[in-house]
Amino acid sequence: MTPPFVNSPRLALPTATFTHIVQVWDAYREELRAVDRHIASAVDSRVPVINLAAGHLLQSGGKRLRPLLLLLAARLCNHRGPLEDEIILASAVEFVHAAALLHDDVLDDAALRRGHETARLLWGNKASILVGDYLYTRAIDQVIRLGNMEIESTLVHACREMVEGEMLQFSLHHNTHITENDCLTVIDNKTASLMSAACALAAMLSGAPPTQIAALTRFGRCLGVAFQVADDALDYLAQPGKLGKTIGKDLCEGKITLPLFHLLSVCDPEERTVVERIIGHGGELGGGQNGGQNGEQGCATAQDLGAIIRLMERHHSVSYAIDRSRHFISLAVEELRAFPPSAHREALELIAEYVVSRDH
Amino acid sequence: MTPPFVNSPRLALPTATFTHIVQVWDAYREELRAVDRHIASAVDSRVPVINLAAGHLLQSGGKRLRPLLLLLAARLCNHRGPLEDEIILASAVEFVHAAALLHDDVLDDAALRRGHETARLLWGNKASILVGDYLYTRAIDQVIRLGNMEIESTLVHACREMVEGEMLQFSLHHNTHITENDCLTVIDNKTASLMSAACALAAMLSGAPPTQIAALTRFGRCLGVAFQVADDALDYLAQPGKLGKTIGKDLCEGKITLPLFHLLSVCDPEERTVVERIIGHGGELGGGQNGGQNGEQGCATAQDLGAIIRLMERHHSVSYAIDRSRHFISLAVEELRAFPPSAHREALELIAEYVVSRDH
Repeated sequence: MTPPFVNSPRLALPTATFTHIVQVWDAYREELRAVDRHIASAVDSRVPVINLAAGHLLQSGGKRLRPLLLLLAARLCNHRGPLEDEIILASAVEFVHAAALLHDDVLDDAALRRGHETARLLWGNKASILVGDYLYTRAIDQVIRLGNMEIESTLVHACREMVEGEMLQFSLHHNTHITENDCLTVIDNKTASLMSAACALAAMLSGAPPTQIAALTRFGRCLGVAFQVADDALDYLAQPGKLGKTIGKDLCEGKITLPLFHLLSVCDPEERTVVERIIGHGGELGGGQNGGQNGEQGCATAQDLGAIIRLMERHHSVSYAIDRSRHFISLAVEELRAFPPSAHREALELIAEYVVSRDH
Repeated sequence: MTPPFVNSPRLALPTATFTHIVQVWDAYREELRAVDRHIASAVDSRVPVINLAAGHLLQSGGKRLRPLLLLLAARLCNHRGPLEDEIILASAVEFVHAAALLHDDVLDDAALRRGHETARLLWGNKASILVGDYLYTRAIDQVIRLGNMEIESTLVHACREMVEGEMLQFSLHHNTHITENDCLTVIDNKTASLMSAACALAAMLSGAPPTQIAALTRFGRCLGVAFQVADDALDYLAQPGKLGKTIGKDLCEGKITLPLFHLLSVCDPEERTVVERIIGHGGELGGGQNGGQNGEQGCATAQDLGAIIRLMERHHSVSYAIDRSRHFISLAVEELRAFPPSAHREALELIAEYVVSRDH
């Protein structure tokens, strides 16, 4: 297929169609490269190790899903301003994402990210914290340049929600009385907020009417929830190396995600005793003398993980999570009806499908 | 003394005089209380532990030096806009300060801050990292409300410099070939940047001419450097509990501050061997498997600390640092000549004197 926007990304052909996600990535390759170049040029600290550690993460093969969402949403809203503004905004969103990942890897004692050693393993937790902080400042610096208060507020609000989501997740660790609503609130805050912001920011930049801004905001929310629910399901399915991370990590960290919530809600009392024993090791928050640095204390053994996975298979808990993810994808796609049919809308629909179907 | 601005802070009496720092704090008590109220109302997370941990630090008896600088600088520049804007800006600066402290305490494995247990000891490192992130978002959210791009950029730039200063300091840990310029660059970035921003932001808010903005920017820089140099000197002088922190902490963490730099630069070769042995334990950056979490490996013993302090006494290293602090204070005061004599100018001069003379 000839990518519909090649050579002339600002003059999209509404009649062109996408039939596979690969075509979407392909059509936006040049714009995403421009985002990459902008990101590289904006990581310009006088302190070399900051550039090294930031570059390590930013160039580690991330899919640039959030920048792609932003670029597509801008096309959907007929953005007529300079493409440069979209690139700046897409870079800001990716900086926030990278900053959060750097801090998350410290929070989770993570060793691998996208199949590579994490920055915290290579440069230490302290560098990861500071480089995360640095990238937040770079993100805000980018949006300030656009001089649009609504855009700035939206991005900062997303940052706040992401932090609150992470904190809420920690406060629910090892809590076997968690509800589905708790699980979804965590996800909505920690993951969906930034995807939603990416879409909303593009609409704001384009001067779209409030109904379209609201529709894209909800589209991003639903897409983000679906994305994270699918990701959490994969944690009980993926083969090591397939997604660049190990299986059962959430269980090990005491995170109760949707598959585990489902198992807890449907298993019989005898099974529940087993599940609660495995989940119920210690608690990380509340810290104490060790400052809560070490998540190892609640780590499940391979035998425990095997038991959980067998119970999940018996009760179809992973399928339940995938079904929930599909539900949110259908809600996301529904929101796109606020826009007339176009290649951009098709592209966003394909991304939605991709989010729930990747790697399983 | 009757505080010169009481009841009518917006109509300051240029003829009123301050002769002691206590009078300055006293005269601005109401405004600083308004800052405290604004801070308390802006820490409004839906996640209770965030409010708890943020409140623990923000209400731990900080002197609100940066808000005071900002309020005084605004008066110096005849700010005629709403006092509310000064309060918002002062709160934003204090949020940035608090966010940096929360992350610093994690970076330094600190147990005490202002005589109280640190948030990381009470709620864990993970909470401290996330609550620090949260406070950064609250800071930016405050300044966005003012809708002034120059103000936003200045605050974000200060955040960036603070992070770079911390990172630079880590990369120089245990490095016995550090220069005085290295020491001052670290300090300039990690501490002086925010004090400078506090002063500059007030001038910008007031619509002051560029020469006055520049003078207050430099005033804050010099004051900040003097403040941190004095603080670093106190680390080799203070009695435990006096400043709410323990003595010799910098040495323990491998930080080479001005007194230690001075000692290295003047001691004889035999003494240098002793000093280098004590400083030269391991390195924290470069991380490895433990993720560089633990600063204990380079910790000096009480005997080592005693040896260093005796050598510093012999070579007057602490006095050297205090002299350098005084030098920067005189540079700071010099900058105030860009403004006609007034009670506000006197107040800033007294603050400058306070910064170098507190607790010794």
